Amino acid sequence: MCALQYLRPDLLHLKSYDAVLPLAADKLDANEFPLDWPEGFKQKLSLLWEKGIPSNRYPDANHHGLKQAIAAYAGADPAQISVGNGSDELIRSLLIATCLGGRGSILVPEPTFSMYAILAESLGIPVVRVARDSESFALNLQACGQALADHPIRVVCLVDPNSPTGNGLSAAEWAWIETLPPQILVILDEAYFEFSQHTALPKLADHPNWVILRTFSKAFRLAAHRVGYAIGHPQLIQVLESIRLPYNLPAISQWAVQIALEHAEEFLADLPLLRRQRDILEQALPELPGVRVWPSQANFLYLRVEGRDPQQLQRDWQDLGTCVRATGGGIRLTVGTPEENQRALERLRQLLH
Amino acid sequence: MCALQYLRPDLLHLKSYDAVLPLAADKLDANEFPLDWPEGFKQKLSLLWEKGIPSNRYPDANHHGLKQAIAAYAGADPAQISVGNGSDELIRSLLIATCLGGRGSILVPEPTFSMYAILAESLGIPVVRVARDSESFALNLQACGQALADHPIRVVCLVDPNSPTGNGLSAAEWAWIETLPPQILVILDEAYFEFSQHTALPKLADHPNWVILRTFSKAFRLAAHRVGYAIGHPQLIQVLESIRLPYNLPAISQWAVQIALEHAEEFLADLPLLRRQRDILEQALPELPGVRVWPSQANFLYLRVEGRDPQQLQRDWQDLGTCVRATGGGIRLTVGTPEENQRALERLRQLLH
Repeated sequence: MCALQYLRPDLLHLKSYDAVLPLAADKLDANEFPLDWPEGFKQKLSLLWEKGIPSNRYPDANHHGLKQAIAAYAGADPAQISVGNGSDELIRSLLIATCLGGRGSILVPEPTFSMYAILAESLGIPVVRVARDSESFALNLQACGQALADHPIRVVCLVDPNSPTGNGLSAAEWAWIETLPPQILVILDEAYFEFSQHTALPKLADHPNWVILRTFSKAFRLAAHRVGYAIGHPQLIQVLESIRLPYNLPAISQWAVQIALEHAEEFLADLPLLRRQRDILEQALPELPGVRVWPSQANFLYLRVEGRDPQQLQRDWQDLGTCVRATGGGIRLTVGTPEENQRALERLRQLLH
Repeated sequence: MCALQYLRPDLLHLKSYDAVLPLAADKLDANEFPLDWPEGFKQKLSLLWEKGIPSNRYPDANHHGLKQAIAAYAGADPAQISVGNGSDELIRSLLIATCLGGRGSILVPEPTFSMYAILAESLGIPVVRVARDSESFALNLQACGQALADHPIRVVCLVDPNSPTGNGLSAAEWAWIETLPPQILVILDEAYFEFSQHTALPKLADHPNWVILRTFSKAFRLAAHRVGYAIGHPQLIQVLESIRLPYNLPAISQWAVQIALEHAEEFLADLPLLRRQRDILEQALPELPGVRVWPSQANFLYLRVEGRDPQQLQRDWQDLGTCVRATGGGIRLTVGTPEENQRALERLRQLLH
């Protein structure tokens, strides 16, 4: 195809995010929480929409009530919070705020969440990829140090616990992060915070070059509504606020989060059940022939099957009715309901016998 | 305040979009449609949300049904459509697709919609501003030609009808647009298409360097849900799709648009009433002392009052209960309900006597 002359030539072959297709199957491929909102909460939100949200009016561009609620939940100040159309918008804004104009590259230890590299490439920002340890998926600190010496790294992208591998940052990794100089922004993506209960928040005040990302798409079951947030230094937050689209969050999304946070205890009460289900899967999977599974602090497990191509295994598993995600040289399996998890195990057993 | 070293210095003083504050007053400041959705449609959407949209699942990343519906409404092919979080996201994606990496500047004939310059500056893209004719607000074609000769213009930003001035593009302006070479992208922002009924769509096939932007925030009364769309060459659309955030549109926003388009005739049936209200305002305003009003093809009017500072006039008008927008050296007054319009006139009369 002949290229349109006004387009950036480097974008013509950009590989975009491989999004989930809606399928009539057990959806254990997108790290979603397996349950919808309880009916009463859905009714509460729909009543609010019917009676209290004028659809013809622009939403609150300042996210006033929303930021108050998020700050109270997270244990931060509203001036430390910026809210985005999922974490995706915040990642893009962070890259725009730091790297554009040839100001630097991003360091991405792989395998990890693919949107960091995708968004950087869409902005023409160079991506420096460093392989994680192939056994533990810990950062290869020597290789990371070398990357910092060899490239003008402006942003280090760390998902904690990491997706797809499930491991949290170790003490050695934290010690290295502490050494990163003030001209490098460290993104600490805590999308799975509610499952791991680990957070860098207590150390944030000492590190104005750290920023935490979180989301309402996982534990709070609001993937359909697209809300993520950043916690960071007020000056960084001010810049994020000036970069973001002024009306980036629909009114109903803002209210959905506020209802979720009003009832946070009820939503989070299901987490121990989910963790038990993760433990059951973690024990049962290695009993199948050739299956290796890694410990996880999140709502998913990373596994590999000896002699099996992950892409083919994903297709076969899906044909039997369970969607999983082949990524990073293995399979990422989201923890679902007890029934979904049992079916996933039975189907994999069937595939491997 | 000491700058964080990882931030782009040029962003520290970025002036962001001056968004609307929610106020208990007649809101004639944001070019919204003055009426909410009819109750029956709101109930239809809330029932769909309660029963048919799992809040824990990511929305359709491919916008399949949404694009079909928009294409049918607009009279285009789904491959010519990309849908964004308002037009704002599409403007940003268009600038990313064309100008980043020092590939060019944008030409903005002012006064016009401020987001073009704001989004360009947030991306570090140079903005070349050219003043419109101070009487008619037509493009100063000589100055535009000079700007093309003097600067590496990659994108020309045209709002038709223009906001805040309400004028549509003239035959002479169209003739100039036709001469723009293939390496320049022409953005034709038709946010007010339903009011003006003018569109560049029939000529789009002959001009792969033109792209049309539209929105559901105005005539379809969905500002709260944030949905805009682009119509353009399939190759441009493909690049926009690869740049946008994969889950940029909440599930309920996608369904809101589909419901609106299913009932497009009912929504658009109110437009003649709105145009009559605009005509009433256009006739009544110049009867007030010192008031000059310009003809408009949109759902707002642009006016100036001799000897009055627009910012001060905005504050005074608002103190009496009508919010308007001071912009481009004048006042932009959105056409509201008959009652809101009468109150706006009475309050202005009170201010000017």
